[in-house]
Amino acid sequence: MPLGPFELPAAADFHVHLRDGPMSAAVVPTIRRGGVNIAYVMPNLVPPVTSVSQAMEYKARLEAVDPSVAYLMTLYLHESITPEVVREAKMASISGIKSYPAGVTTNSSSGVLSYEPFYPVFAAMEECGLVLNLHGEIPSDQKQGITILNAESKFLPTLKLLHSKFPRLRIVLEHCSTKDAVEAVRACGDTVVGTLTCHHLFLTVDDWAGEVFSFCKPVAKTPEDRTALLHALVASKGKFFLGTDSAPHDISAKKGKGKTAAGVFTQPYACQLTMTALEEAIERGEIKESDVTQELLEGFLGGYGRRFYGVEDRSGQRIRLSKGQEVVSGNIVGEGVEVVPFRSGQQTWTVEWI
Amino acid sequence: MPLGPFELPAAADFHVHLRDGPMSAAVVPTIRRGGVNIAYVMPNLVPPVTSVSQAMEYKARLEAVDPSVAYLMTLYLHESITPEVVREAKMASISGIKSYPAGVTTNSSSGVLSYEPFYPVFAAMEECGLVLNLHGEIPSDQKQGITILNAESKFLPTLKLLHSKFPRLRIVLEHCSTKDAVEAVRACGDTVVGTLTCHHLFLTVDDWAGEVFSFCKPVAKTPEDRTALLHALVASKGKFFLGTDSAPHDISAKKGKGKTAAGVFTQPYACQLTMTALEEAIERGEIKESDVTQELLEGFLGGYGRRFYGVEDRSGQRIRLSKGQEVVSGNIVGEGVEVVPFRSGQQTWTVEWI
Repeated sequence: MPLGPFELPAAADFHVHLRDGPMSAAVVPTIRRGGVNIAYVMPNLVPPVTSVSQAMEYKARLEAVDPSVAYLMTLYLHESITPEVVREAKMASISGIKSYPAGVTTNSSSGVLSYEPFYPVFAAMEECGLVLNLHGEIPSDQKQGITILNAESKFLPTLKLLHSKFPRLRIVLEHCSTKDAVEAVRACGDTVVGTLTCHHLFLTVDDWAGEVFSFCKPVAKTPEDRTALLHALVASKGKFFLGTDSAPHDISAKKGKGKTAAGVFTQPYACQLTMTALEEAIERGEIKESDVTQELLEGFLGGYGRRFYGVEDRSGQRIRLSKGQEVVSGNIVGEGVEVVPFRSGQQTWTVEWI
Repeated sequence: MPLGPFELPAAADFHVHLRDGPMSAAVVPTIRRGGVNIAYVMPNLVPPVTSVSQAMEYKARLEAVDPSVAYLMTLYLHESITPEVVREAKMASISGIKSYPAGVTTNSSSGVLSYEPFYPVFAAMEECGLVLNLHGEIPSDQKQGITILNAESKFLPTLKLLHSKFPRLRIVLEHCSTKDAVEAVRACGDTVVGTLTCHHLFLTVDDWAGEVFSFCKPVAKTPEDRTALLHALVASKGKFFLGTDSAPHDISAKKGKGKTAAGVFTQPYACQLTMTALEEAIERGEIKESDVTQELLEGFLGGYGRRFYGVEDRSGQRIRLSKGQEVVSGNIVGEGVEVVPFRSGQQTWTVEWI
């Protein structure tokens, strides 16, 4: 029996990169194409969003492009973030603070070298109810045998430490890419959850080796890891939900250079690709068709995340997900920018607003 | 104390891709720039070199470009290769037969699916004294958990099986990239050796992720694997020697596309990069300066391989390797082709013919 169609509340994407300027103007209008009306916005602009006023101004710029999306704003964890800034952020309805280890991904050069200096900030976040979003990788270190392959696994003791020090602090381990990460999130209490991207539900190491439009951080790992992510999704019960980490880069930064920018662009197909990945996993026998229930999709594509963040969708907007003949369309083109979507030209599911 | 300079017999490169036509015309003249006067030529043209006459014609084309290099020719293991072809090859002074598993690297679509049908061929090779050159990877298979990361390790039982079935057959495990491969070669008898490329002495997985000019097959693995290769080199005693696997691709095949061709071009810097890699390994404390002896370099850069293949260099040509201010120069440009060398713009050692 074919999967779906499914009619659901509008989806939420709890990890998006919307950039700024012409790139933002090009990609913000694609959010709703993915069936999404709430976007949790990453703060890694250049320079990073480290103050409440910067975040509010950024939000206003996003709303000017598409006012029909709710933007949940974040700050970039940085030495200028103090407990006072945390309280100010809470007053301004900023949702969370994102931690990037220094140097591990796009625009992370202002990132964290050590977590301990931020303990007073984490304590204030715990008290105020701000969410800590973790890019869960440690920087590569050849002497220590740390590479992009085990960078996430090696980060997990830090996740567990922060959770034990701040048990009421809500923490999201972003873009889980390994079986180890899934197990670590499961082993923590209810205040710790993980996001899953669409692309990590498709990719393994073979797919991004020499394929620039599938290269991202954290890198996709082994088939066993991918299976663990798919199992985490279907067994989520709120512990894992969608955060696409859609990361647009101009085509010149992806294929015009010897060194390729890390990031996969999935924004216009957030729900569609999730459904396609689930369907392919069913075909491979990794999950069962009966795993993909209405309840699961309502939760994974929005409900679980909204509940975790405490944001309601009062819009009443709904979407219909179905498998038709749609293919991932051509590049997103803006003023001086051009972005190649993930799985360009390949078949995918369809979203309709109903 | 600075390393070198060293004066040595001309070097030998026991694994080169010289292509054909304009690409060949561009890269063949760079062989001697790397201090090399004997090149062991891979047969993966399109179509592959599967007959003695093709190999002889190919050799003549290479000699027409640069007659000052000795070209050792190979055939591509393929269903058209019979014991009769082996004997004919021996008569024509063809040195070996290269086995590519189907589909694992550039121009391997005609490759081997199963080794057992070739046992009569291997028996004839053992009898005649032809060398079997193995691309030691098995094709990725997601269901079996086989990826480009463990493809070499998973191949090693095949190496051991072939060695046990044909103990007098000389076998080269080409471009060893893992600790596992080094250990497997060491565990075999004297008829089994391994080649090491320059680039695997530099690279780990972090270096080729998103860096198209460092992407090759087999992919570079972990720092521990790289250390094992460096230790294999300095402890070689004839078991490991240089085969650069220099693999030129036009710049458009490397960075002009979403999908990047696998291959690193090191031909003009074969000896220079080897020395630079050894120097960097000394700086990292992975090997000792006293490991890099005159005897080791004479062996690794030529003597060990010549002895294994039974080819003498009667030219008396000698080279001098020294560390100066040389940097890897710009792209190699030919008629409609342009090739970016590995570590372009970075400092390297110098070769002089003396």
